[in-house]
Amino acid sequence: METRIYMDYGATTPVHPQVLDAMLPYFSEHYGNPSSVYREGQRGKQAVAQGRASVAKLMGCPDPREVYFTSGGTEADNWAIRGYALKHRHKGKHVITTSIEHHAVLNTFKALEEKEGFDVTYLPVDEKGFVDFNSLQNALREDTILVSVMTANNEVGTIQPIKAIGELLKEQNIAFHSDAVQAFGSIPIDVQAMHIDMLSVSAHKMYGPKGIGALYVRKGLKLENFMEGGNQERSHRAGTENVPGIVGFGAACNLMADELETVNQRVTALRDDLIEGVIAEIPGVTLNGDPVRRLPGNAHFCLEGVQAEALLTSLDLAGIAASSGSACTSGSLEPSHVLLAMGISEEKARGSLRLTLGRDTTKAEIRETLRRLSAIVQRLRSLE
Amino acid sequence: METRIYMDYGATTPVHPQVLDAMLPYFSEHYGNPSSVYREGQRGKQAVAQGRASVAKLMGCPDPREVYFTSGGTEADNWAIRGYALKHRHKGKHVITTSIEHHAVLNTFKALEEKEGFDVTYLPVDEKGFVDFNSLQNALREDTILVSVMTANNEVGTIQPIKAIGELLKEQNIAFHSDAVQAFGSIPIDVQAMHIDMLSVSAHKMYGPKGIGALYVRKGLKLENFMEGGNQERSHRAGTENVPGIVGFGAACNLMADELETVNQRVTALRDDLIEGVIAEIPGVTLNGDPVRRLPGNAHFCLEGVQAEALLTSLDLAGIAASSGSACTSGSLEPSHVLLAMGISEEKARGSLRLTLGRDTTKAEIRETLRRLSAIVQRLRSLE
Repeated sequence: METRIYMDYGATTPVHPQVLDAMLPYFSEHYGNPSSVYREGQRGKQAVAQGRASVAKLMGCPDPREVYFTSGGTEADNWAIRGYALKHRHKGKHVITTSIEHHAVLNTFKALEEKEGFDVTYLPVDEKGFVDFNSLQNALREDTILVSVMTANNEVGTIQPIKAIGELLKEQNIAFHSDAVQAFGSIPIDVQAMHIDMLSVSAHKMYGPKGIGALYVRKGLKLENFMEGGNQERSHRAGTENVPGIVGFGAACNLMADELETVNQRVTALRDDLIEGVIAEIPGVTLNGDPVRRLPGNAHFCLEGVQAEALLTSLDLAGIAASSGSACTSGSLEPSHVLLAMGISEEKARGSLRLTLGRDTTKAEIRETLRRLSAIVQRLRSLE
Repeated sequence: METRIYMDYGATTPVHPQVLDAMLPYFSEHYGNPSSVYREGQRGKQAVAQGRASVAKLMGCPDPREVYFTSGGTEADNWAIRGYALKHRHKGKHVITTSIEHHAVLNTFKALEEKEGFDVTYLPVDEKGFVDFNSLQNALREDTILVSVMTANNEVGTIQPIKAIGELLKEQNIAFHSDAVQAFGSIPIDVQAMHIDMLSVSAHKMYGPKGIGALYVRKGLKLENFMEGGNQERSHRAGTENVPGIVGFGAACNLMADELETVNQRVTALRDDLIEGVIAEIPGVTLNGDPVRRLPGNAHFCLEGVQAEALLTSLDLAGIAASSGSACTSGSLEPSHVLLAMGISEEKARGSLRLTLGRDTTKAEIRETLRRLSAIVQRLRSLE
């Protein structure tokens, strides 16, 4: 059996040993409930405060009180969009997002549209997956209250011009949410410099644990609560704090704060090797997204005459863990809404492959991936 | 410094070593995203399925597909109540709960009342904290669609006549939700025998990790989704699964399935020793709740002439971790809504003390707690 090669860091990442070490004491030893007044509880409370400070720091947020912990990126997206829209519906019922968002964003907007009577504009993107700035400008109306544009696309890796969008929306006094679940910990993000009002992030995409995320909410911005109950998170998000998860998220942020640039340079170089190799060795391949303004670890292709399902199964048998796009819709046989929005045909979209590299990816793994992938594509095409 | 004695298992519990052992491989080794089709993902999917089966089994649920994982008890409560009420509002807008529910339930009903135009009846309880069955019968109306009664109260430990309520509501064809966050893993629960349609549970109250809970939803019962996004939890609860958390919850359920009776007998005996001791040794003390039909680990008192804040601080300094009621409202200086609903005066309610025992509590700890508590109460009273 061939050695396994994990090429799906975009779906989830292993918890880094340093992160797990930081978490471990909080399961069975320092297990106090942060809401409790006695020593064990205060220790938990302190751990939560430290985690919050680490997450805040990595997003350029000056005041940790602007960071609220959630159960993950999906909850952060749901809360930000639904919470802001419902709280401010009296000011206007027009909201804007893009056609290539993650379903945690898209389906939340759809629910606002179908159940709450909001008018939603879904912005088009160009063939590389960039949101069209003019379309955004033209879409803004008197009654527009919220715009949500993802920091970087989870499938094709395209990094959006977030700062320019943030500046425009700040001028217009319209709230700006960005889903940074795939980008946070991968590229530098600064909520102040980028004029982001709400930012959704998740730990498990950046070597932290699953089940913990956060929502940054700029001071003064009001949202409806998403969960009612106890007074946790300054009465804005009820539920006993996931202390080990928060500690782990904080540790992951500290790790990336120290190593973001080094890791990125290394991963970007490996990714470019992979992209060049695939294009050189496999005929009938196109790279999706932008060659440069893309997430460091992301390589995304369409392969002519290949069906994604068969390709992924063959890759798995050959020891390679890969995806056709997003993990959250892997079960689906529909072609990706992101690729379709980029103007790629249904037929072509059915032959998509996402290879996502991470901090543990090696040169040898890239070579091996190329070798196995080439052989598989050749075989699959010969079977047609 | 005196040895620490943890007497607040009701607030949260240490993760059991066996539970942590079960979880550990899923952080950095078997970290695959359960939505991914390749081997690593399928391993995660399997782990989630096993966890689900264990949780289902401990609640007497015949089909694990009726169990949906959430980020905790609060989310389960919010989802059940809000999700059911909004989905079925066309059938009627009257809903019923009790005046002694946890705030995760109470505040969700309040939101339905204030923002969605529901009519909410808050049932009274008697002096021991039992919901009055006649009041419930009398409160039922043509347009009643949902009743929520907690399995056991988190402050005073009173176990409600859930089966009788379930039978009544089944006859009347009204949906029945029960918040079992404090009861699950502590007393036997059987959603079938008790005719419960929705049950909220949480891992961290029963030696599992924080940040994971579940909602049982009887087959065929329809709820609005609480979180939109990917296709996880059969498209009913989006968000990448918290695999280690789910594995831990499952392991905690397996543990309690084996040991529930033994642990309960031991803890009940220790609790009765504690209650007898407190009443014998400290004057001006009353036990709150029912002496028998209460959670095994729960002892809850009112102490005349003592302020809970001063008492808890002194206990903490003397090495005892205890609570005045619920951890989730510890910050609050308001007297407990539960005690007030039981007809206890504000003044008396301000002198409340909850001591909750767990599987690691020893006879020696009970003796020590009695000794330290007696001395502290005497000193506090002498300062008045």
